[in-house]
Amino acid sequence: MALLEKVLREIEPLDEKAMAAARDRQDILTKPPGSLGRLEELSVRLAGIMAVPMPRIERKAIVTMAADHGIATEGVSAYPQEVTAQMVLNFLHGGAAINVLAQHTGAKVIVVDMGVASNLEAHPGLLRRRIANGTRNMTEGPAMTREQALESIEAGIGIAEQEVEKGLDIIGTGDMGIGNTTPSSAITAVITGEPVVKVTGRGTGLDDLQLNNKVEQINKALNVNRPDPDDPLDVLSKVGGFEIGGLSGVILGAAAHRVPVVIDGFISGAAALIAAGLSPAVRDYLIASHVSVEIGHRAILKKLRLRPLLDLELRLGEGTGAALGISLAEAAARILTGMATFAEAGVSQIEESKG
Amino acid sequence: MALLEKVLREIEPLDEKAMAAARDRQDILTKPPGSLGRLEELSVRLAGIMAVPMPRIERKAIVTMAADHGIATEGVSAYPQEVTAQMVLNFLHGGAAINVLAQHTGAKVIVVDMGVASNLEAHPGLLRRRIANGTRNMTEGPAMTREQALESIEAGIGIAEQEVEKGLDIIGTGDMGIGNTTPSSAITAVITGEPVVKVTGRGTGLDDLQLNNKVEQINKALNVNRPDPDDPLDVLSKVGGFEIGGLSGVILGAAAHRVPVVIDGFISGAAALIAAGLSPAVRDYLIASHVSVEIGHRAILKKLRLRPLLDLELRLGEGTGAALGISLAEAAARILTGMATFAEAGVSQIEESKG
Repeated sequence: MALLEKVLREIEPLDEKAMAAARDRQDILTKPPGSLGRLEELSVRLAGIMAVPMPRIERKAIVTMAADHGIATEGVSAYPQEVTAQMVLNFLHGGAAINVLAQHTGAKVIVVDMGVASNLEAHPGLLRRRIANGTRNMTEGPAMTREQALESIEAGIGIAEQEVEKGLDIIGTGDMGIGNTTPSSAITAVITGEPVVKVTGRGTGLDDLQLNNKVEQINKALNVNRPDPDDPLDVLSKVGGFEIGGLSGVILGAAAHRVPVVIDGFISGAAALIAAGLSPAVRDYLIASHVSVEIGHRAILKKLRLRPLLDLELRLGEGTGAALGISLAEAAARILTGMATFAEAGVSQIEESKG
Repeated sequence: MALLEKVLREIEPLDEKAMAAARDRQDILTKPPGSLGRLEELSVRLAGIMAVPMPRIERKAIVTMAADHGIATEGVSAYPQEVTAQMVLNFLHGGAAINVLAQHTGAKVIVVDMGVASNLEAHPGLLRRRIANGTRNMTEGPAMTREQALESIEAGIGIAEQEVEKGLDIIGTGDMGIGNTTPSSAITAVITGEPVVKVTGRGTGLDDLQLNNKVEQINKALNVNRPDPDDPLDVLSKVGGFEIGGLSGVILGAAAHRVPVVIDGFISGAAALIAAGLSPAVRDYLIASHVSVEIGHRAILKKLRLRPLLDLELRLGEGTGAALGISLAEAAARILTGMATFAEAGVSQIEESKG
């Protein structure tokens, strides 16, 4: 608890002075003021997060956390559970979508085993932070103990701090875990107050019958566990997952070190709900990369008052949307540092009161 | 006319076989089928355009064409006309938004003087394809002769062909020209059939009075010239611009060589309307990078049946949106070439008929 409490104390509001300086600079760069729209807004927020008027984004990382879920035995996913471990190996060998898109963005991928059920052999590219061999089946009781929930968050904080130590300008979140849209929907229902059926989607590809079953299983889990919406650790432990807790920790740890966090889709969003429940100030450090096809994601973005940068109908996870979002954040920052001012370029400014 | 006619004959339908192969490959890559949404669609279209099952996007260029407009004397822009030439120098010195974003995307910027009013000195980075010292004031008669309209298009074709010769996998379009949202609105009104007031926006920042004047000037130009909506060369010559004609040529020339064209915002969109009027087949070669704040852009995208990739509230032009769009197209292509298949990675596939 000591580490989490320390980090929660360290998360500060955005730097208003750096934001004002970035805003002023945007207005003297050689373009009509405001004409780069949301890229300008984003550059200003990056300045506020990083507490510098001209932020640079060069050292980029995406943390992709994997874990298994006891609920997977209840037919909530179109894929068998062994796929979690198989995909971790795919990440380590560079063959997954996240490898391709992270490479495109120039970000490294940090693969973390937060609690995959199958036995994963040691690999130089794999960080082992295993809390247990997957969570318990949340329809029968809590997915994990409160201690395990805290442990998963603190593992995530540790990974963020380790990357900050090495040098880090921006971090993205990603997930892998067969069945993990189910705990994400449960968390979303509890924290946003929306009915389960409104925040539960087809995940990797359920049919109507399977979707009905998924909703039923989530309702059962909520009835059995009665998570307290005002206690994020209670929600995480009762209906969460180890990778979700880990990502909450990554978010909190990064924010405490003024590193912008680009969140991916639905599972990362559920982690952001937990993180923002623990520290409302963390919200300002979050950049929503995209809005997922998974229906619950919109409720999360609304609750966190975040506007996604992209709407490309993605629903893969792994951090794929975050990779694209990091590229846009880098582009936004480059505007501030790379463009000439009107004075520098000898370009005439807007004609005042012409009308 | 010979060059234009040749190019119009050369534009072929997409390669259905390459598209089918790309679609099949997307379904065996290690992700739930369809989970990369519009990136998958885009990869398939790139395959069809480039006529290869696994397209590669490495050699990237953005053509930014500049010209002046006679209509600029009628108070249709917030900036003085000399800014066109000043911004061309800014492009050549690398200080503009397009320089920064093209560098971010790894694309070179090809700056073309299609008819800037001020005298621009020779510069190794500047292609001079000047049709005249700006267009004539279209409220008093045609903006240019029919011969000049053709000349501008053929200049654009020439530039596309020159780049194809050097090696080119994708091309973006961009513009610079004080006052050029005015001819773009005029072209849009004529070709889409929308009323002028519905496709005319504030450009670089007009107030209400100035906007009313702009609408009035466009209506006047349309009444004086009566452009024929079914004759794109007539529309271009009467209410167009040299950079708009040039970009139409770039689009046609690239499509004739099966090079995907990422179109930027409103002015590039007007050029695309002219190009698609000359060759309906060209539409399939167009990738709409973003939807502009400039209201007429939506009417263009609707007419061309194109869905923009981004909605970042951009309204700068220069090719800035195209630069971001090229990066997404490259990401889409990389999915096809970079990801492992289920078989290669030893990952289990979806469980059939589980429900």
